[in-house]
Amino acid sequence: MFKNLLEQIYKEVNTLNLEGQQASYIPELANVQPNKFALHITTIDKKHYGIGDVNEKFSLQSIAKVFAFTLAYQLKGSAIFQHVGVEPSGNPFNSLIQLEQEQGFPRNPLINAGALAICDVLISELNNPEDEILSFVRKIARNKTITYNPAVYQSEKKTGYRNRALIHLMKSFGRIQNETENVLDLYFKLCSIEMTASELSKTFLLYANSGIIPDSPEQILTESQTKRLNAIMQTCGFYDEAGEFTFRVGLPGKSGVGGGIAALHPGKYAIAVWSPLLNAKGNSVKGMKALELLTTKLGWSIF
Amino acid sequence: MFKNLLEQIYKEVNTLNLEGQQASYIPELANVQPNKFALHITTIDKKHYGIGDVNEKFSLQSIAKVFAFTLAYQLKGSAIFQHVGVEPSGNPFNSLIQLEQEQGFPRNPLINAGALAICDVLISELNNPEDEILSFVRKIARNKTITYNPAVYQSEKKTGYRNRALIHLMKSFGRIQNETENVLDLYFKLCSIEMTASELSKTFLLYANSGIIPDSPEQILTESQTKRLNAIMQTCGFYDEAGEFTFRVGLPGKSGVGGGIAALHPGKYAIAVWSPLLNAKGNSVKGMKALELLTTKLGWSIF
Amino acid sequence: MFKNLLEQIYKEVNTLNLEGQQASYIPELANVQPNKFALHITTIDKKHYGIGDVNEKFSLQSIAKVFAFTLAYQLKGSAIFQHVGVEPSGNPFNSLIQLEQEQGFPRNPLINAGALAICDVLISELNNPEDEILSFVRKIARNKTITYNPAVYQSEKKTGYRNRALIHLMKSFGRIQNETENVLDLYFKLCSIEMTASELSKTFLLYANSGIIPDSPEQILTESQTKRLNAIMQTCGFYDEAGEFTFRVGLPGKSGVGGGIAALHPGKYAIAVWSPLLNAKGNSVKGMKALELLTTKLGWSIF
Amino acid sequence: MFKNLLEQIYKEVNTLNLEGQQASYIPELANVQPNKFALHITTIDKKHYGIGDVNEKFSLQSIAKVFAFTLAYQLKGSAIFQHVGVEPSGNPFNSLIQLEQEQGFPRNPLINAGALAICDVLISELNNPEDEILSFVRKIARNKTITYNPAVYQSEKKTGYRNRALIHLMKSFGRIQNETENVLDLYFKLCSIEMTASELSKTFLLYANSGIIPDSPEQILTESQTKRLNAIMQTCGFYDEAGEFTFRVGLPGKSGVGGGIAALHPGKYAIAVWSPLLNAKGNSVKGMKALELLTTKLGWSIF
Repeated sequence: MFKNLLEQIYKEVNTLNLEGQQASYIPELANVQPNKFALHITTIDKKHYGIGDVNEKFSLQSIAKVFAFTLAYQLKGSAIFQHVGVEPSGNPFNSLIQLEQEQGFPRNPLINAGALAICDVLISELNNPEDEILSFVRKIARNKTITYNPAVYQSEKKTGYRNRALIHLMKSFGRIQNETENVLDLYFKLCSIEMTASELSKTFLLYANSGIIPDSPEQILTESQTKRLNAIMQTCGFYDEAGEFTFRVGLPGKSGVGGGIAALHPGKYAIAVWSPLLNAKGNSVKGMKALELLTTKLGWSIF
Repeated sequence: MFKNLLEQIYKEVNTLNLEGQQASYIPELANVQPNKFALHITTIDKKHYGIGDVNEKFSLQSIAKVFAFTLAYQLKGSAIFQHVGVEPSGNPFNSLIQLEQEQGFPRNPLINAGALAICDVLISELNNPEDEILSFVRKIARNKTITYNPAVYQSEKKTGYRNRALIHLMKSFGRIQNETENVLDLYFKLCSIEMTASELSKTFLLYANSGIIPDSPEQILTESQTKRLNAIMQTCGFYDEAGEFTFRVGLPGKSGVGGGIAALHPGKYAIAVWSPLLNAKGNSVKGMKALELLTTKLGWSIF
Repeated sequence: MFKNLLEQIYKEVNTLNLEGQQASYIPELANVQPNKFALHITTIDKKHYGIGDVNEKFSLQSIAKVFAFTLAYQLKGSAIFQHVGVEPSGNPFNSLIQLEQEQGFPRNPLINAGALAICDVLISELNNPEDEILSFVRKIARNKTITYNPAVYQSEKKTGYRNRALIHLMKSFGRIQNETENVLDLYFKLCSIEMTASELSKTFLLYANSGIIPDSPEQILTESQTKRLNAIMQTCGFYDEAGEFTFRVGLPGKSGVGGGIAALHPGKYAIAVWSPLLNAKGNSVKGMKALELLTTKLGWSIF
Repeated sequence: MFKNLLEQIYKEVNTLNLEGQQASYIPELANVQPNKFALHITTIDKKHYGIGDVNEKFSLQSIAKVFAFTLAYQLKGSAIFQHVGVEPSGNPFNSLIQLEQEQGFPRNPLINAGALAICDVLISELNNPEDEILSFVRKIARNKTITYNPAVYQSEKKTGYRNRALIHLMKSFGRIQNETENVLDLYFKLCSIEMTASELSKTFLLYANSGIIPDSPEQILTESQTKRLNAIMQTCGFYDEAGEFTFRVGLPGKSGVGGGIAALHPGKYAIAVWSPLLNAKGNSVKGMKALELLTTKLGWSIF
């Protein structure tokens, strides 16, 4: 079923002539070929289908925030919510306005400020955060080759002024325990993790599988924690377009300015799409459309 | 199953000594007895269970915005989104700040500004909006006795300064076609509609039933429209606590300052809770807790 | 001295080809001929000079806020500052954002919200506010013919949605004692007062004359109160362009969207300019330029 | 005349039992004795009078922003206003909200963001900015011993998170040409300059003297530029209390969180006051009161 459906969606989206812009503020990301497009689905019952550039690596960017939060949630349990909230921000992903008004407490772990706060927690909790985060992602990805992209990391480190503004603002409110440069460094590394669409959909299956790594006995998050993380993705996974995504697609998910989107239907499947052209809100134009067509044609959304 | 569960939750919530305040800005609402508490569930397979004050009427307030939007969505289709958006506001329900910044375009139909815009559309579309809205609510409620409460209507009409500010701000941006007093009048009437918890859960079953009035052939919204409205409730149904409700409860729903909350599990059931004590965000304290316990104990949420 | 200077400035400004827009949101004001231009100065030592359309009436609009505040300050003394502050707003004259953030307390008496609060005080203090304000303005103008323009009043009453939003927002915070329609009515009347440039400069001489009506024994404000009102004009008289006016002109003054500006040099003179074309901030383009040239050529500003 | 007046004011202020807090966010400043109090006036006609701790050094903090701006204005002329505006902010001195809304362009040179932009300009313009700024201040102070306080500089460098947030936000908008750490370093040095009240009033005489260093032929700013800088001080010199200071005192001036205030009457005198206890807006409580009494008793303000 999924095979024909993905092929049909792939074609339909390509005929639509959707317009977008590549992320410009991370110079390295501007070098990706704009016409790349990939769809890959992995189901709970062990099927998977892909179409397009499903074996090319792309930069996860904000999608990786989900993995950092997963690890921090596993380590700290509900105490993690002393560091980040669970409310949608209603504002662009890198805005300082709300953060100043709310005394440096980030609205949720999936906006930049929240992910920086999570990186700060991970530095406090882990002996070797950079390696341990990578090991954790490899474990849930069931793939030991997943790694950082040093060029993207360097590019973002050189130009990440807005993220530096965010962390210093939080630090001024006493919300950051570690050195700001160390937190930024970990954050930029995290965002530079690369996967293919195939690898990403396989990794996200964790969240469709009640927090258990598929084909393993290992429970990363409890079922209840997994539901709660999915709920956060639903309301906060798409910056100030979370309502639009929920409205059009109706699945929990997370986007990144590398052009990737990962989404999932609890108990059913995970899907990754990739196309580098973004809309004004920073979400992949083709990716949003492909997922909308998927849930519309399937008649399946969580609603 | 539900019977024992509701009894257990009812008891547990009552022992928790939760604190809250009754809505004070609508004088008439301050007269309701604060210890009222009701839970009522209605399932797709025609079962229903209630406990507590399930046969007492309470003021729907913002819950009625869902019905006004349903009617407008039915009448206008997706053109309704020229009048309101689908994004969470991240702000209190009656804030003017975002509305001014966004040139009078309301973020979604479930905040006050959005519901006022919907009332404006209904006045333009209907010959006799006040009667036709009531007929519509009676139809989906399958209950011809549902009606406005004139004392609550008068009370809100006399004191609704914030809503007057909202509508004049929208009018100054050219967003309101009709006389502001007429729109406000319809809005205050709408908010004053009363139901019991039993009636409310029966009415909300529409949204768990793909937009079809149960036991009837009548499709009010298409399946796709129903999913989209449920998605809006999920991200926008609880003012600036929508994330918290999604996180803790994991069901689409809508609250009102009369102390009611209606929620639903698509394809399964609708539930109404009522207790007039509100938290600082304007949502029923016992109601939030009861629904959290329900989805936690059931192990069912849409995530 | 002033005669040649005004002639020179008048010519120079006319050659500059300055561009602007007439106020559009009060339909009646859009009918004024755009090329009108007048300069009129009145000195403490009883000289006066004018050039251009100095005998044509124009709508004072916000300039009249100074007179309403003068009367309220006279009546209430420093207790008036329980109703309005003395800080520049840093925001457009009709913004609701700051007003909501500051619980409905207006930053100063010269923005719309503040003038509405002053009108509310005058209604509480006076038996017949409409007549008594007019009598007061006639007294300080030394001119019994000054009056309201009914067409402008009606025009603004019909379209003043933003002012209705402001007053209802203040009312929702308990800041307005009287009926909102009555306060708005007085405010729209006040703004519709008309004067010629000649009359306006003569009226403003009060503020250059330590609060004493020239050629009379009557002290309207004490010397200290007059200084304080001049200080408010300096920091708040030009909406979010008060800094620019202080920087370029260096005199206390007040502008109106009718295209008038009145300014004064304490102990020396008062000046009125009129030209209906406004810049984006709502201040007369030619008027700002003429006053800048005046203080630059004179080498006189209060700084 | 001034001698008796200052003595009287000094006594009166001390009896008033005014309450305030020392600046806490720069640890080094918290060590100053809270009961310090000094008043010192220097007149155009070469008289000077002081009372209290007039020979103790204190940290100029934001007062030094006036000197940095003076130098940059001298170097760049009106082109400096491509880097900073002249409008009051209406917001706290270190707020990022307005700065983000206005794309990183600082409202004026006397708030933190504006002074950082001025330091950036000075780094671009000068070969050895740190030394040249100090030489410049020594020249206008007519005092070769004026210098930075290394402990205060280090203290602020270690804790200046909010300033780091500001500069990175401006850098993200392309407003800062030099390395952020270099700009911050110069800024922290600038703020750490120390003077006594006696030295400060002597230095500020420049601004009362049409931009000419007293007793010298050297014109630092033209008369027109001096008026314009005085105008900026009037509307922007006291953060979000500029209106209050203008209203109560009626002189151009500048405050610092070290507890100093410098003010001037053009053509007449300059005055410096110092007392480390601050009100909630960051301005010296005793200093504000002393200056209010001065202009009230003298009957002199610029208005």
